Amino acid sequence: MTTGPDIGTGPGPGPGTGAGGDVAVDVAADEARVARAYLLGVAEPPAPAVAAFVAEHGPAVAAARVRRGEVPAGVAQETQARRHVDRAVDTLRTAHEAGHRLVTPEDDEWPAWPLLSLQIATGRGVRDVAPPVGLWVRGGGRLDEVVEGAVAIVGARAASEYGEHTAAELANGLVRDGTPVFSGAAYGIDGAAHRGALAAGGPTVAVLGCGLDIAYPAGHVGLLNRIAAEGVVVSEYAPGTPPARHRFLVRNRLLAALTSGTVVVEAGRRSGARNTAATAGALGKVVMAVPGPIGAATSVGCHELIRESHATLVASVDEVLDTVGRSGGMTRTATAPRPRRATDGLGPEALRVHEALAERDGSAAEHVAEAAGVPLARVRALLPELELSGLVERCETGWRRARVTSAPVPRG
Amino acid sequence: MTTGPDIGTGPGPGPGTGAGGDVAVDVAADEARVARAYLLGVAEPPAPAVAAFVAEHGPAVAAARVRRGEVPAGVAQETQARRHVDRAVDTLRTAHEAGHRLVTPEDDEWPAWPLLSLQIATGRGVRDVAPPVGLWVRGGGRLDEVVEGAVAIVGARAASEYGEHTAAELANGLVRDGTPVFSGAAYGIDGAAHRGALAAGGPTVAVLGCGLDIAYPAGHVGLLNRIAAEGVVVSEYAPGTPPARHRFLVRNRLLAALTSGTVVVEAGRRSGARNTAATAGALGKVVMAVPGPIGAATSVGCHELIRESHATLVASVDEVLDTVGRSGGMTRTATAPRPRRATDGLGPEALRVHEALAERDGSAAEHVAEAAGVPLARVRALLPELELSGLVERCETGWRRARVTSAPVPRG
Repeated sequence: MTTGPDIGTGPGPGPGTGAGGDVAVDVAADEARVARAYLLGVAEPPAPAVAAFVAEHGPAVAAARVRRGEVPAGVAQETQARRHVDRAVDTLRTAHEAGHRLVTPEDDEWPAWPLLSLQIATGRGVRDVAPPVGLWVRGGGRLDEVVEGAVAIVGARAASEYGEHTAAELANGLVRDGTPVFSGAAYGIDGAAHRGALAAGGPTVAVLGCGLDIAYPAGHVGLLNRIAAEGVVVSEYAPGTPPARHRFLVRNRLLAALTSGTVVVEAGRRSGARNTAATAGALGKVVMAVPGPIGAATSVGCHELIRESHATLVASVDEVLDTVGRSGGMTRTATAPRPRRATDGLGPEALRVHEALAERDGSAAEHVAEAAGVPLARVRALLPELELSGLVERCETGWRRARVTSAPVPRG
Repeated sequence: MTTGPDIGTGPGPGPGTGAGGDVAVDVAADEARVARAYLLGVAEPPAPAVAAFVAEHGPAVAAARVRRGEVPAGVAQETQARRHVDRAVDTLRTAHEAGHRLVTPEDDEWPAWPLLSLQIATGRGVRDVAPPVGLWVRGGGRLDEVVEGAVAIVGARAASEYGEHTAAELANGLVRDGTPVFSGAAYGIDGAAHRGALAAGGPTVAVLGCGLDIAYPAGHVGLLNRIAAEGVVVSEYAPGTPPARHRFLVRNRLLAALTSGTVVVEAGRRSGARNTAATAGALGKVVMAVPGPIGAATSVGCHELIRESHATLVASVDEVLDTVGRSGGMTRTATAPRPRRATDGLGPEALRVHEALAERDGSAAEHVAEAAGVPLARVRALLPELELSGLVERCETGWRRARVTSAPVPRG
């Protein structure tokens, strides 16, 4: 292979056991990759017209026409400002050297199935959820594998100790169950979720609202390195793209699309996590929220989501897994065993007879009938039954309640 | 009036401005009252066959036939054990001396409308929700008035500090709004709710699972006196009836029926409050639950109710009132005002242009277009618009972001 630079799909110096390989790079795939790298750099996501244009003409033709400006009005609108910026080949080479790769729909590891939700929602008229033209990836995990049954855990940057603890615990439990955990690598809930997942041995996936080469947030550079080592860091933004608020909102559609469900752990009234939840809902994904004390401003957004039926309340890892509809790898009951009382299973009359008895002094059946308001004949039939169950006993003065200790019994 | 004792409807030594009066007691009403007092003492509630029998024949004829044992099988089953116990006249006299009264469907203050839900549910086949034959009442409030728009606040006896604080705050706020608060006078949440309501000046109503003359729970005797002074204590159990677990469950249907909605503040997995909620749901009443920290055993039952859509999450007095569908006496917005950002209301392109600007150094419009991915012509149009809004400003080197402070602005 002598034509063009090695812009292969395999990671360079990274830990990589990932997709593709440095050896046999397909020329057509490379053409497509360069074209998509160019389009990702030119059109600020989400770019529905560009996505449709690429789907119609293929990436190479679409990119060539964008370069020449021979495009329909919608595509022109999305590409006009930057179409003269063509650094695709350089960008791919630099990324390769940094151990990053551009994953495209032409690659085996492209998560086509989860991303289909974006295409469907766009077709249904949902705004700002066009599928990405490609995804920049850092880390050894295969993208199509880490999305398998994944759950997103998101929440406010200004999180409480309760929220961070909860996010870490949920992420930890999900990863132990074999469920990959996605988040946005922000301070607060996001970081706690990634750390909890890493503590369980990963994998965890960070989806960014800036280029993979941007050290953002500054305090999470070490965390992002660990995520890349154990999982994957993903962004549709070209290297060099700085973070911006609108990019976090746009990124949120990827978090929602790539996972089966999104858990909002803490959210204030204005939290971006509510936006992720709304997007997940629009994509037909499961939206969950964790409750908290009603006085806490950090739980207001979660309570609103639950109260307005935009999210299902989840209070445990099992409830998250039940809600996304997966049984998981381990045997698990839907809920913890309920403590049982010795009198559980008694009919209403037997219960009334039992309640009418004292624990110390015995009563005659006639007295029990009157106190319980149960016909005497029934009382005479029920008392021996209750005696067999060990719930009542005979004594010199009649019948009395037997002392029974309650013990938790697992449900059948 | 020389026939029969004075078993009037007015309270004796109580604070009473209540229904009826000691002066002109109607003989027919007294006959009905004696008959109902007898039936309440004989048939352990709920007694659907007795309720139907009374509805068909009237209380006097029904009581006479029960005394003679000339009744259908269902009525016999419900009355057989105690039909020989006829202390109605004595009971009414003793109750009158204690300041208690028996309110019956023949009285003006009978809360016929709310109790209709029990009859309808029984007709629909819901078990154990037959309407009461009469209600023993202590306190000066009129029963038909204190049920007006009332809300029940219930919860576990083994409550947390958070739960008791929340119950008291909600009850206090509801009473301030003019909403009477019902509860069960138990330790924990119930007591906190009554106390919170009393602190706001009442009224509050306790519905008991034992006779009005029973000092139960022992530690709440003083509280029950205060409730009777400011509101009403209610029970369908004849004086002398001891408390029993099954009676609390039966009582719960009255709490549910007499109110527009029930708020469960804290409930463990086995809490009786869940039973109240289930009954309220079966009666078509609004069921609400307060969330709490997910680690707290005292909130598990509430979270289950919300998660399984048996209850609506409520986190404030306003949300309780909104959920029961009342606007209340005071002007109130549905939710607290949301904090607003200066950039709220900007379109997506304007937002992107704004984000692309630095706060210190100015940028040329061409550079802004490229950074934001917005066509240059649009950028040139948007920048002056943003300048007018005070969001961007011109400087020597081009355009830069203006420093704006966010401030909470009430919604329109």
